Amino acid sequence: MGKAIQTLREHLGEISDLSVASSVMGWDQQTYMPPGGGPGRAQTLGTLSRLIHAKFTSEDTLRMLDAAEPEIAGLPDDHDDVCLVRKTRRDYEKSRKLPDDFVADWTRDAILSNEAWRVARPKNDFAGYKHHLVKMVDYARRQADYYGYEEHLYDALLDDYEPDLTTAEVKSIFDVLRAEQAPLVKAIAAKPKPRSDFMFRHYPAAKQGEFAMKVVQAFGYDLNRGRLDVAPHPFETSFNRDDVRITTRYKEDFPQQAIFAIFHEAGHGMYEQNIGANLARTPLGHGNACIFHESQSRTWENIVGRSRGVWDHFFPVLRETFPDALSDVTVDEFHAAVNRVEPDLIRVEADECTYNMHIMVRFELEIALMTGEMNVDELPEAWKAKMQEYLGVTPPDDKDGVMQDSHWMGGSFGYFPTYALGNVMGAQIFATAKAQNPAIESDLAAGRFDSLFNWLVENVYRHGSKFLPKELALKVNGKPLDAAPYIAYLKGKYGELYGV
Amino acid sequence: MGKAIQTLREHLGEISDLSVASSVMGWDQQTYMPPGGGPGRAQTLGTLSRLIHAKFTSEDTLRMLDAAEPEIAGLPDDHDDVCLVRKTRRDYEKSRKLPDDFVADWTRDAILSNEAWRVARPKNDFAGYKHHLVKMVDYARRQADYYGYEEHLYDALLDDYEPDLTTAEVKSIFDVLRAEQAPLVKAIAAKPKPRSDFMFRHYPAAKQGEFAMKVVQAFGYDLNRGRLDVAPHPFETSFNRDDVRITTRYKEDFPQQAIFAIFHEAGHGMYEQNIGANLARTPLGHGNACIFHESQSRTWENIVGRSRGVWDHFFPVLRETFPDALSDVTVDEFHAAVNRVEPDLIRVEADECTYNMHIMVRFELEIALMTGEMNVDELPEAWKAKMQEYLGVTPPDDKDGVMQDSHWMGGSFGYFPTYALGNVMGAQIFATAKAQNPAIESDLAAGRFDSLFNWLVENVYRHGSKFLPKELALKVNGKPLDAAPYIAYLKGKYGELYGV
Repeated sequence: MGKAIQTLREHLGEISDLSVASSVMGWDQQTYMPPGGGPGRAQTLGTLSRLIHAKFTSEDTLRMLDAAEPEIAGLPDDHDDVCLVRKTRRDYEKSRKLPDDFVADWTRDAILSNEAWRVARPKNDFAGYKHHLVKMVDYARRQADYYGYEEHLYDALLDDYEPDLTTAEVKSIFDVLRAEQAPLVKAIAAKPKPRSDFMFRHYPAAKQGEFAMKVVQAFGYDLNRGRLDVAPHPFETSFNRDDVRITTRYKEDFPQQAIFAIFHEAGHGMYEQNIGANLARTPLGHGNACIFHESQSRTWENIVGRSRGVWDHFFPVLRETFPDALSDVTVDEFHAAVNRVEPDLIRVEADECTYNMHIMVRFELEIALMTGEMNVDELPEAWKAKMQEYLGVTPPDDKDGVMQDSHWMGGSFGYFPTYALGNVMGAQIFATAKAQNPAIESDLAAGRFDSLFNWLVENVYRHGSKFLPKELALKVNGKPLDAAPYIAYLKGKYGELYGV
Repeated sequence: MGKAIQTLREHLGEISDLSVASSVMGWDQQTYMPPGGGPGRAQTLGTLSRLIHAKFTSEDTLRMLDAAEPEIAGLPDDHDDVCLVRKTRRDYEKSRKLPDDFVADWTRDAILSNEAWRVARPKNDFAGYKHHLVKMVDYARRQADYYGYEEHLYDALLDDYEPDLTTAEVKSIFDVLRAEQAPLVKAIAAKPKPRSDFMFRHYPAAKQGEFAMKVVQAFGYDLNRGRLDVAPHPFETSFNRDDVRITTRYKEDFPQQAIFAIFHEAGHGMYEQNIGANLARTPLGHGNACIFHESQSRTWENIVGRSRGVWDHFFPVLRETFPDALSDVTVDEFHAAVNRVEPDLIRVEADECTYNMHIMVRFELEIALMTGEMNVDELPEAWKAKMQEYLGVTPPDDKDGVMQDSHWMGGSFGYFPTYALGNVMGAQIFATAKAQNPAIESDLAAGRFDSLFNWLVENVYRHGSKFLPKELALKVNGKPLDAAPYIAYLKGKYGELYGV
C-alpha cells in the first residue's frame, strides 16, 4: 500500500473512530442513560459531530485524496483503494456544498423540532407541530439548492439517502406498485380474515426476546458480536463488524411487534456483521445506502421471517415457550395470522401488502411540499384524502395521521421512498439468489438458512459501500432495480393465503 | 467573563467532551459490550486518548493559558477562573514532561501487562507475571525521572494520584496507624468471633441490588442522574454531574460483597453528582484527587454504612427482602457480622480494622522496588514475610499473595497509599462535620442522612477539584491530614463491639 493511501486511511480511520464514539453514546442514550443525562449528552454529541465534520471537510482531506490519486492510477476499478478514494471524494465534495453555519442551524433546529414533535403528537396539536415543519421544509429546500440538481429539486434530497436515485425512477417504480398492489389489497379485503384472537393473549416480554433471538441466531446473527436491548423505538447500530447491536420494545399482549422487529433489526445487523474486515475504519465499512440496507431487514423480517418454512420449524418452539397462549393454535393459523392483511392508519404497524401504499402517500406529499404546490396548512386534509385514496381508511385525527412519523421533524425529506424500494430490492435479490442456488428454496422450507445467508454475504454484505448502489445492483442482479420480482412474490404468497 | 477565558474554557470543554466519550465507551466495555467487540474498542479508545493527549499538550493550551492571565489578574484566589487557570497550568506542565513516545510505549505495555496478569494470576504463574512487572517497575522509575523530585523518587509517583503528597508524609501517618491498629487487631483476635453463619445463605442477586439501592438512595444517591449495572469489578464512573453510574458484582451466597460495594461506589457517585454545575466541562469538574474521593466512598460504606443507625433502620427492610435467610437473626447479630474483624489474605475483602495493614505491605514493597533496594525476584518471599508481620497470615501461593492486585501491572505505583489515607481523611472529615453540626450524630442514629449529606455537599463535594488537596483539607478541617480521628473512631467502634 502506498504512503499517501496509508495517510488517507489513517485520517479516515480517526474520523471513523470518532463516529464510533458518537454511535456508542447514541446507543447508550436510547437504552441505559439515566433521564438526567440528556443535556450533558447533547453537549458531548454536539462536540463530537462538530469535530467529525471539521476533520472530514478540512482541506487536509482534499490534499490527501489528491496525493493518493497517483498511487491508485492503473489499479482495477473494484480495488478497495480505488473505491475508497472515489467514495470519499464524492462524500467530501457533497459535504463541502453545505455552509457550516447552515449545518449548525439546521442541526439545532432539527433537535428542537423533534422535541416539539414528541410533545405535540400525543396532544394531537397540529398547530404546535406546524411552525416547526414550516422551518424544516424551508431547510430542505435550501439544502437542495446548495447541493444543486438537474431535473428535480427532490433529486438532490434523495441523493442523501440513496446516491444517484432520481425522482423519475422512484415514480416509475411506484407506478407499477400502485397498479399492482392496490387491486391486490382490494381483492383481499373482500375475503374472510384469518383468525387472530390468540395474537392478543399474554406473552411475557423476556420470553418474547429469548424466542426471537433463537430464531435470528439460526438466521445467522452472531451474538458473540452483537446483543439485544430494549429501547423506545427498535433500531440497529453498528460500531464495527464485531459489535453490531439491535434493540426492540415489547407489548405483552401483542408479541408480533417485538418478534418481527427483532427479525427486522437482525437483518440490518447480519449485513453489518458481515462487511469485509478489509473495509474496517473506512467510509466503505458500512452497509450500502438505504435501499440495500432496508432490502435485507425486510427480507429477514418478511420474505424469510413470515415464510411457511420458518414457522414449520419454529412454531413448535414458540408453542413450548408460550403454552398458555398457543395451546389451541395450529401452525396454519399462526402463519396466516402473521400474514394478515388489513389496511390501517400507522405505517410502522402495516402489513407487507399495504406497507408501500403508506410510503406513496408520503412521497407524493413530500414532493408537493418541496415544489411549493402545497403548503403546510393544507397538509392534514391532503393526508386524509391520500390515505382514503390509497388505503381506504381516513385517520380520525392528526396524531395518527400526518404527525405519526418523526422523519420530517428531524429534517429528513427523501428518506421514505427507500423503505418501499427496499422491499422491491429485497425481493429482486432473493429471486436472484434462488435462481443462482436452487437449494435455497428447499433449505428455507426445511428451516435451514445458511445457503441464503452465505449467498448474501458473498454477493452483497461483504462489499459494504465499495460500490455505488446502482453499480452494486447491477453486480448482484445483472439489471437495475425492477418491481416485477416483488409483485410476483406478493401475488404468489397472498394469492395462496387468501385465494385471490 | 473575558474573551481569553472563554476561549480557554471552550478548548478545555472540547477535551472534556472527548474524555466523556472515552468514559462512556469504558463503561460500556465493562458492562454490555459483546465479547467480540474488544479489539475494535481498543482501537477506538486508543484514538480518543491520543486525540485528548495531543489537544491538551498542544502549544494552543499554553497560549490560551498565557492569554487568560491578564483577565484573571486581581480576581480572588478562590475565583473559579483563577482556580481553573492554576490547575490547568499545573496539569499542562506535568503532562509536557513525559515524551509522547514514552507515553505511547508505556500505555501499550501496560495493556499487555494487564492481559498477562489476567492469564498468569489464576495459574499462580509468577514467572509469567514477573518479566512484565520488571518492565512496569522500569517505566515507573523513568516516569519519576521525567517528572523530577526533590526528596524521594516515590514523591514524583505519589503526585500523579495526590498532588503534593510526599513519601515522608505518608510514612508519618502510617507510623501512627501501625502503632495503633496492630495492637487493636491483636486484642480483637483474642476475643470470640461474632456469629456469621447467616451471611453465607442464599440471597438472590437481583434482590441484593434492589435492597442496596434503597439504602443508597436514602443516603443521597440520585437515580434520576445515575444507575446500577453489573460488572466484573465494581466501579463508579462519572460522565458529568447528571450522569454518574455505579456497578457491582453479586455472589448469591455472600451478599455482603455486593451490598457494601454498592454503598462504596455510591459514595464516590454522590460526590460526583454534587460537584458544582459551574465547574462542568472543565478540569475542575470531578472529585478532588484520590484521598478525598476514597474518603467519601469509605465514609458511606463504613462509617455510615456499617453503623448501628443504618441497620436499626434498614435491617427490618433487609429481613423482609430475604425472609428465608434472616428469620433467625437479630439486628445485633447482623451489625456484629458486617463488622467482623478477621485478618485475611485479600485486600479487597479486608475488614475496616485490617484494611490499612494491607496497604502498608504494598507501600513498603513499592518503595523498595522503586529505590532498587529489592528486585522483582525477591518480591514473593518479601510479600509473605510482610503479610505475616502485619496481619499474622501467610499466603499459601502468589495468586492470593503478591499477584492479587492489578495496579502494578497497569503501571500504577503510588496509588495504594491513597486508599489508607482515604480512610483517615474520611474519619477526620466526619469528625469535623459532627463538631460543626451536632445533629448529624443523632440523625444518623435515627436513619436520617440529609444533615450529613448536605454538610458534605456544602463543604466538600461542590468544590470539585478547584483547590489542591492540601488546601481543601485545610478549608474543610482547619488542619492537615491527621490520623487521630480515625484511630479514635476505630477504637470507639471496635472497643464497643469486641469489648477491647
